Amino acid sequence: MRLLSNARLARIDGKSAHYAVSEPLSLVMRGDRIAWIGAADALPDDFAGAVPHDLGGRIVTPGLIDCHSHIVFGGDRAREFEMRLEGASYEEIARAGGGILSTVTHTREADEAGLLASALPRVDALLAEGVTTLEIKSGYGLDIETEIKMLRVARRIGQERRVTIRTTWLAAHALPPEYRDDRAGYLRDVVIAGMERAHAEGLIDAVDGFCEGIAFTRDEMAQVFDHAARLGLPVKLHAEQLSDLGGAAMAAKHGALSADHLEYLGADGIKAMAASGTVAVLLPGAFYTLRETQLPPVQALRDAGVPIALASDCNPGSSPLSSLLLVMNMAATLFRMTPSECLAGVTAHAAHALGLSDRGRVAVGSRADLAVWNITHPAELSYRIGFNPLHARIYGGEFA
Amino acid sequence: MRLLSNARLARIDGKSAHYAVSEPLSLVMRGDRIAWIGAADALPDDFAGAVPHDLGGRIVTPGLIDCHSHIVFGGDRAREFEMRLEGASYEEIARAGGGILSTVTHTREADEAGLLASALPRVDALLAEGVTTLEIKSGYGLDIETEIKMLRVARRIGQERRVTIRTTWLAAHALPPEYRDDRAGYLRDVVIAGMERAHAEGLIDAVDGFCEGIAFTRDEMAQVFDHAARLGLPVKLHAEQLSDLGGAAMAAKHGALSADHLEYLGADGIKAMAASGTVAVLLPGAFYTLRETQLPPVQALRDAGVPIALASDCNPGSSPLSSLLLVMNMAATLFRMTPSECLAGVTAHAAHALGLSDRGRVAVGSRADLAVWNITHPAELSYRIGFNPLHARIYGGEFA
Ligand SMILES: [Zn+2]
Ligand SMILES: [Zn+2]
Repeated sequence: MRLLSNARLARIDGKSAHYAVSEPLSLVMRGDRIAWIGAADALPDDFAGAVPHDLGGRIVTPGLIDCHSHIVFGGDRAREFEMRLEGASYEEIARAGGGILSTVTHTREADEAGLLASALPRVDALLAEGVTTLEIKSGYGLDIETEIKMLRVARRIGQERRVTIRTTWLAAHALPPEYRDDRAGYLRDVVIAGMERAHAEGLIDAVDGFCEGIAFTRDEMAQVFDHAARLGLPVKLHAEQLSDLGGAAMAAKHGALSADHLEYLGADGIKAMAASGTVAVLLPGAFYTLRETQLPPVQALRDAGVPIALASDCNPGSSPLSSLLLVMNMAATLFRMTPSECLAGVTAHAAHALGLSDRGRVAVGSRADLAVWNITHPAELSYRIGFNPLHARIYGGEFA
Repeated sequence: MRLLSNARLARIDGKSAHYAVSEPLSLVMRGDRIAWIGAADALPDDFAGAVPHDLGGRIVTPGLIDCHSHIVFGGDRAREFEMRLEGASYEEIARAGGGILSTVTHTREADEAGLLASALPRVDALLAEGVTTLEIKSGYGLDIETEIKMLRVARRIGQERRVTIRTTWLAAHALPPEYRDDRAGYLRDVVIAGMERAHAEGLIDAVDGFCEGIAFTRDEMAQVFDHAARLGLPVKLHAEQLSDLGGAAMAAKHGALSADHLEYLGADGIKAMAASGTVAVLLPGAFYTLRETQLPPVQALRDAGVPIALASDCNPGSSPLSSLLLVMNMAATLFRMTPSECLAGVTAHAAHALGLSDRGRVAVGSRADLAVWNITHPAELSYRIGFNPLHARIYGGEFA
């Protein structure tokens, strides 16, 4: 049992996504939960034995939650990034083995230990900024063995580091070359059959897909989601990133936890998401890296009361990014979200996007996952660029 | 005397700004200089006593050089950032004390110890990414005492940390309210009179100004530069950031070390800079923060053979940024510069922009300011976003 004293809590009102910073308070952590919050002189006798930690008036937020990442992968794409900037054509890069299939090849070749070793420094970069929950997707195997290997590595990250990992089955990420002429076969033999096997191993917390002209259609994804429902698995979708295919509305109809990207989301999709309580997960790292100019409909999402989460989308192609603070700055700078919306986006709303109701808030009964910051105002978290003011990370009631 | 072994050197060809990565080599540091580079088995007997450090095949670059920063300032502008995103008008922010004058007020109020304490965490963030030389400007005092106070703090940073500080007199940054109706008086009584005093104290390495509609005219800056020349001080200029006033060409005519920002630079300015050997310092952090859409003329600068440097522009208003790696990524992503150009931009060309010929290259006789990286290819430095792969920083021949 630990007693944090002199903690100024940046607490978010879920509805308005606006925060208030409290006067210095005390907070008791018992086991992995927050047991009590109040004025120092009102501490109940039950908690008198708690080990004290004076936070010196520092600001405390919920531990940050990255609700959309592809952080487990083989190889990297730095040379492809360079070739493109040096003027190589799309064909030259493809001939040199570039693109998502380069990542698939390296991920298939890697063993679990290699994938783990390459992912951990990226995970550590997130944790160093106060992340306490991290979602990790499969999707670079595109065969059952490799997709399962990715999710086993994801689970191992949760054993190697003090962070909660949520795994997502994303075999419907791209069509592998060996199924080029058999889309139905890929969905049946890999996406759905693999989902059954991985689920039987306890490797899947949610099911995702990429609904786009270059990937899978809305009807194909609906078929995958129907199967997820039969297994009792929640769903989410990469939707409306490059065009409006009605993916978000379809996902909402399936009760999706979230629809992600959403640059091209229209009014129908927003209405459906509001009705189903589906979270909008915006990914400014991909927007920035792809130099996208179509902004996601932030004001319309606000007006409709759709909660907006933010995530790293950490991946080797369109978002080689491992800083959630930078995501907050990009959402403020590029999407004109307010700093309080940005903080809600990586805490309460991100928890919501993962279907987790026990975290993302500093409240009695919540998990004691906290971030303690050397800042004078929470707006600094979104304002600064490339600066990490974390003082301490608290995971499940322990300094981590 | 130290011997670095198994060092793969990323060396930049100054002309093409292209790098080559060497096979593992040995490098001897004697005093603060690089004394020898060669194959391990060719080590001359003179160096047999050097203390060995095996770098395990890691990639070594010159220590990074941030050649344009306003890193010493009072207060911060996080709340102003937030108010703007929450829809406050320009007038409301001004009434709340926002804008550059808010920074001037806080900088005037702060004492040297306070300015130092607030700057050091930002400096430390740069150093943690391998920075070994940092330029710091005055310009938030706009009176002689405060401008001098800022440069004293800059010099103290060089005593508190293992980094070379280059100071720049930027009293011609903005017109303070008390001189609103007396531009000539401000230039004479503060910019030029203060320059004399600060120079007499040994506080000025170069003289800078902001040539823009909202700041000083080309003719006003020419007058300041003439005075700098009389004192034997090199000059540089904030030019063509918001419009083309011919500032870069004027600066080039005065033999300026650099012209900085340059989004609106035209053909005449480029021609003048090429003729005078003036470095183009691009500042992608300000471009990004201001959501500028006018790109600096990178291809025309390349074609004219003008060296391009990159810098943080770290300042509380338009670039609250303290990561030179992020600057490299922004220059690649937003300005389409190649990773090798980005590396030259924060090493050899940045040294050039500061008039320093003894650093920015891994070469015998150069200062032994080095950065050792956990990467497999130098392109990773520009490719990754919000990730710091620094293994070790070496300053003046010592691990720092
Ligand atoms: Zn994704
Ligand atoms: Zn500047």
